[in-house]
Amino acid sequence: MNEVAIIEKLRKLAARGPRVTLGIGDDCAIFRPRAGQDLLFKIDPMMEDVHFRRDQPPAIIGQRALARNLSDIAAMGGDPHFCLISLAVPRELGENWIFAFYRGLLALARRTGTALAGGHLAHSEKIHCDVTVCGSVPRGKALLRSGARPGDILYVSGRLGKPWDRPIQPRLALGKSLRGRATSCIDLSDGLSLDLHRVCVASSVAAEVERVPVVRGATIERALHAGEDYELLFTLRPNARPPRASIRIGTIVRGRPGAVFLQGQPLAARGYDHFRSAMDENQEGARR
Amino acid sequence: MNEVAIIEKLRKLAARGPRVTLGIGDDCAIFRPRAGQDLLFKIDPMMEDVHFRRDQPPAIIGQRALARNLSDIAAMGGDPHFCLISLAVPRELGENWIFAFYRGLLALARRTGTALAGGHLAHSEKIHCDVTVCGSVPRGKALLRSGARPGDILYVSGRLGKPWDRPIQPRLALGKSLRGRATSCIDLSDGLSLDLHRVCVASSVAAEVERVPVVRGATIERALHAGEDYELLFTLRPNARPPRASIRIGTIVRGRPGAVFLQGQPLAARGYDHFRSAMDENQEGARR
Repeated sequence: MNEVAIIEKLRKLAARGPRVTLGIGDDCAIFRPRAGQDLLFKIDPMMEDVHFRRDQPPAIIGQRALARNLSDIAAMGGDPHFCLISLAVPRELGENWIFAFYRGLLALARRTGTALAGGHLAHSEKIHCDVTVCGSVPRGKALLRSGARPGDILYVSGRLGKPWDRPIQPRLALGKSLRGRATSCIDLSDGLSLDLHRVCVASSVAAEVERVPVVRGATIERALHAGEDYELLFTLRPNARPPRASIRIGTIVRGRPGAVFLQGQPLAARGYDHFRSAMDENQEGARR
Repeated sequence: MNEVAIIEKLRKLAARGPRVTLGIGDDCAIFRPRAGQDLLFKIDPMMEDVHFRRDQPPAIIGQRALARNLSDIAAMGGDPHFCLISLAVPRELGENWIFAFYRGLLALARRTGTALAGGHLAHSEKIHCDVTVCGSVPRGKALLRSGARPGDILYVSGRLGKPWDRPIQPRLALGKSLRGRATSCIDLSDGLSLDLHRVCVASSVAAEVERVPVVRGATIERALHAGEDYELLFTLRPNARPPRASIRIGTIVRGRPGAVFLQGQPLAARGYDHFRSAMDENQEGARR
């Protein structure tokens, strides 16, 4: 199968969206936005030996490639609309690997209303996939990192320290329900310590973490620093009722912008710095 | 310099755009579209040893990475708005290479009104850059591949067979001027023979090429099949006046959809099939 035949098959499998008025097959895809909306955009790579290993199931790699980006849409309170996928794969993997990758990706796309609007296919020595997603919020309603205020209560949407190679469930419904309620929000992709530090820097505040909810079998170190949880971390005013199943973990306080404390002790932002550590600090085979 | 410091420096260098209301630094970028517009999207990779060699000037690699995508916006008649850049580089290249790459990219971004809305930076064994661009046209006014009709005249915007490693000038002003005038349009990225075949397939027509304008020093083979020209190929109704400096090369005719003839002889679509030939048919060291 050459590129034309593979893309033609993908085009038939592709999830469609009502506002994607032209999909795969021209120089660009066309998206017709609804009036009164702000559009959200994110690009993020999935790289062999950084985010996954080649021997993992391709459907899960594809699922995660899209899910990580949808998690960013969730963190802004958005509805997803479409994605663009640039995939490069080693020749020896063949078309079955490509279709399995897309099967995992497109199952999540369909379930979340995300159209596959365009993409690119190439050969490379290692698997490399860049995903761009577009979502939307009503104008001015995006959840930012920068709105946390002293006195706000800190929540996470679930326990932390999950295995890095599982499918990801982006918290889209929760993110949407936080519009107009949360004062700040971020998704936990790089670890609580680093992502909370980022919220505190953006909001010019500090944070006191009182407890860290850990999944069964994970260490507190993993829950604090390992990343790949894709839960939402958000803040609410002290009088606001938290969404069901969210877990209170601390409070926002005055202090040096970016400072984070765990039960009174300074907590270093040791989460995942991709650029510093991508290629040499992976101790569990792939991502860490 | 770690990722945070490099991204902070890039954020300061980044071209801004009036409708990008939130740029680098949150989970997503925010773009506020104008009412009554269709948005255009394209993702395309630039890969070491496929599209360029590592010893080329990084500023030209960066320029081309964005220019190739802007050429697709031009081919749809669009105005560019913003780009998202996912760049992965070998550790040994260092931050100077990264900044030079971005210098080339951002100079073109500024000149064309393209904001740098977001991106990602990682380490990899080979240089790999995926660029997503967003542009717009007034609703329903995008130039498609599918509107060519028998009797239309075929034009290109310049001579073909250019060297593959030069800076690219995307034909944005020309593309915009063709809105409402051209019946079809495509940018010549993969070679006249393949790209004209694509227009003919999309439009269910055939084409007769009468002459091929070749740049000084290039062969007709190169002009027909080599790609990387990034001129526009477009069709006008026979009574329409062509834009200044465009070159008439043939006519659209009835016939088997996709068939292309050169001076009466069938012309095979031998242009660049990226997926088939990316890694092993590169005879000039890199792209071909």
